[in-house]
Amino acid sequence: MSLLSETVAAITPASVEAMADAEERQSVLTKPRGSLGVLEDLGTRLCGMYAECPPPMPEPVTIVVFAGDHGVHAQGVSPWPQEVTAQMVGNFLAGGAVVNAFGRQVGAEVVVIDMGVACEVPPATGLIVRKIAAGTADMTQGPAMTPAQAQAAIEVGIEVARDRVARGSRLLVTGDMGIANTTASAALISVFTGLDPAEVTGRGTGIDNPMLEHKVSVIETAIAINRVNPNHPLAALAGVGGFEHAGVVSYLLAAAALRTPVILDGVIACSAALVARAIAPCAADYWVAGHRSVEPGASAALAHLGLAPLVDLGMRLGEGSGAALAVPLVQAAARILREVATFDSAGVSNKE
Amino acid sequence: MSLLSETVAAITPASVEAMADAEERQSVLTKPRGSLGVLEDLGTRLCGMYAECPPPMPEPVTIVVFAGDHGVHAQGVSPWPQEVTAQMVGNFLAGGAVVNAFGRQVGAEVVVIDMGVACEVPPATGLIVRKIAAGTADMTQGPAMTPAQAQAAIEVGIEVARDRVARGSRLLVTGDMGIANTTASAALISVFTGLDPAEVTGRGTGIDNPMLEHKVSVIETAIAINRVNPNHPLAALAGVGGFEHAGVVSYLLAAAALRTPVILDGVIACSAALVARAIAPCAADYWVAGHRSVEPGASAALAHLGLAPLVDLGMRLGEGSGAALAVPLVQAAARILREVATFDSAGVSNKE
Repeated sequence: MSLLSETVAAITPASVEAMADAEERQSVLTKPRGSLGVLEDLGTRLCGMYAECPPPMPEPVTIVVFAGDHGVHAQGVSPWPQEVTAQMVGNFLAGGAVVNAFGRQVGAEVVVIDMGVACEVPPATGLIVRKIAAGTADMTQGPAMTPAQAQAAIEVGIEVARDRVARGSRLLVTGDMGIANTTASAALISVFTGLDPAEVTGRGTGIDNPMLEHKVSVIETAIAINRVNPNHPLAALAGVGGFEHAGVVSYLLAAAALRTPVILDGVIACSAALVARAIAPCAADYWVAGHRSVEPGASAALAHLGLAPLVDLGMRLGEGSGAALAVPLVQAAARILREVATFDSAGVSNKE
Repeated sequence: MSLLSETVAAITPASVEAMADAEERQSVLTKPRGSLGVLEDLGTRLCGMYAECPPPMPEPVTIVVFAGDHGVHAQGVSPWPQEVTAQMVGNFLAGGAVVNAFGRQVGAEVVVIDMGVACEVPPATGLIVRKIAAGTADMTQGPAMTPAQAQAAIEVGIEVARDRVARGSRLLVTGDMGIANTTASAALISVFTGLDPAEVTGRGTGIDNPMLEHKVSVIETAIAINRVNPNHPLAALAGVGGFEHAGVVSYLLAAAALRTPVILDGVIACSAALVARAIAPCAADYWVAGHRSVEPGASAALAHLGLAPLVDLGMRLGEGSGAALAVPLVQAAARILREVATFDSAGVSNKE
């Protein structure tokens, strides 16, 4: 059995029993019922994921940044040069990027996986090199990845999630880096939601109207030429995805198999989540939407996944930055069930 | 000069120079311009508040919970018995309430001020007793406070903010406890926004339709009988406010005078902020809206204050719980300017 089949076979739905226990517990804690809104539901979901009520503290936390380059960059879909991917990986490893600052804020370790960065990245602590190729192929000319490349990338995501959980992580966060990766994301989101590319394609890190129109037509071409079909998720991923997308897909599946919650970052993670859910529907029980990216595809994907984001601050950076900000909210949801006194234990009168 | 006049006289607008420096700095950090949305604006505002770019880390943090009871409780505006105020103060001091759990999550100290709890609260570490009276008077029968009581309560808020800043706090958070205090809040919000009581009155900790209608009529009566006028903010506060509202009003003013940002919690803090801004308009430069409470009055007040909330999770608990969740977001906004590398320093190419 392949590593992927083995992983998918190990995924079970969130525990209904633990969630029922959590619902009951929420109602006797010293707060009006429902007064913590979304965090009460999230706390209950966490119990389901960990199959434990109250849930363990969701810590330590790892943010895994999957990095890769994209052949479609040659089509002029981004104003940023391709070498920025490798330069930003260097910035992550030096601790100077936003995801590092936010990781320090929330006490999360940042790990970077070179899935297929075009330029050479000098070795550094925190870098794991699993380069499938020096970037994907141009998806407007044929599949972005060969089947063998897609499989290799999928195996990396599984390996990474297993390794982080084995080292103690109880909460994982998705991160990504790859100039032009919003193009691949929009293509996947169009395929899996059935929406037109024009509805799910955004300005990424900032493009003008002519480049946006061009980006949409590039995505239309890629979807057509690769005959992408949502009923064949791995082929769809190989056709119009990226190496970092493949890494996130299997990272999400492996985390679910290990009953470990994952916070989704923006449009790259959301597109990967659509692929992962097509492979294993109940894996979605283990995912939390970290934030609402400005990219239209992210909102479309979240609606399709039935997930409501925790943070909505008009962000569109990527890297895992939005999801990192959701870490304390996820932990707060667990603390409600772990730490808040009951009416009885605190001697507080209930509603008349 | 009174303590209040002295405080108001010391308030100056946020530093325009520091904000200009921050804007310039935001544009050279390794991220697409504007890609951190609301947090970029917030970081710039923090520089203005501290008059320093980059800003200092907004820590240590104190959540001050102002607690008091309300004579209007006798009118049947809440399903909770009045003794719950004292019982919940006991819960805060024992560390068992939601605000304690969230305070631990974000590394904030929780301090409780007994501004006028009706029942006796046993002495405990973390409790500061400044009881003005055993609850306000019933505002449907006349002013909730005498002018002397209002002045005494105002002085407590100033004293507390000064003390916390003197002990090192660089970020303050508002908190409150008082059964029936959403009634006083809605009355103040109606007066200062000019909206009808029915538009700004909510279900508080959870009331049914008949009680909600009754609550609105109680507020209408209180506003009419006390001839409340937004041009006389102190008299309005004494007329339909609560002791905890008075404490928050002056805490907000004193923090502004000390160039210390304050995160506003929900409807109680928002109503107090309207009073404080009527007293000293530029004090609002130092306030950050922590979250959007479900209470309609909170949104009305925030719109009137021109503040957009950081967290929007359907919460309506009070205590400072929503604002506590915003602490890491405020700190993350500061970290962007403090810690993120520039394109030059990180050797990252800028947009083509």
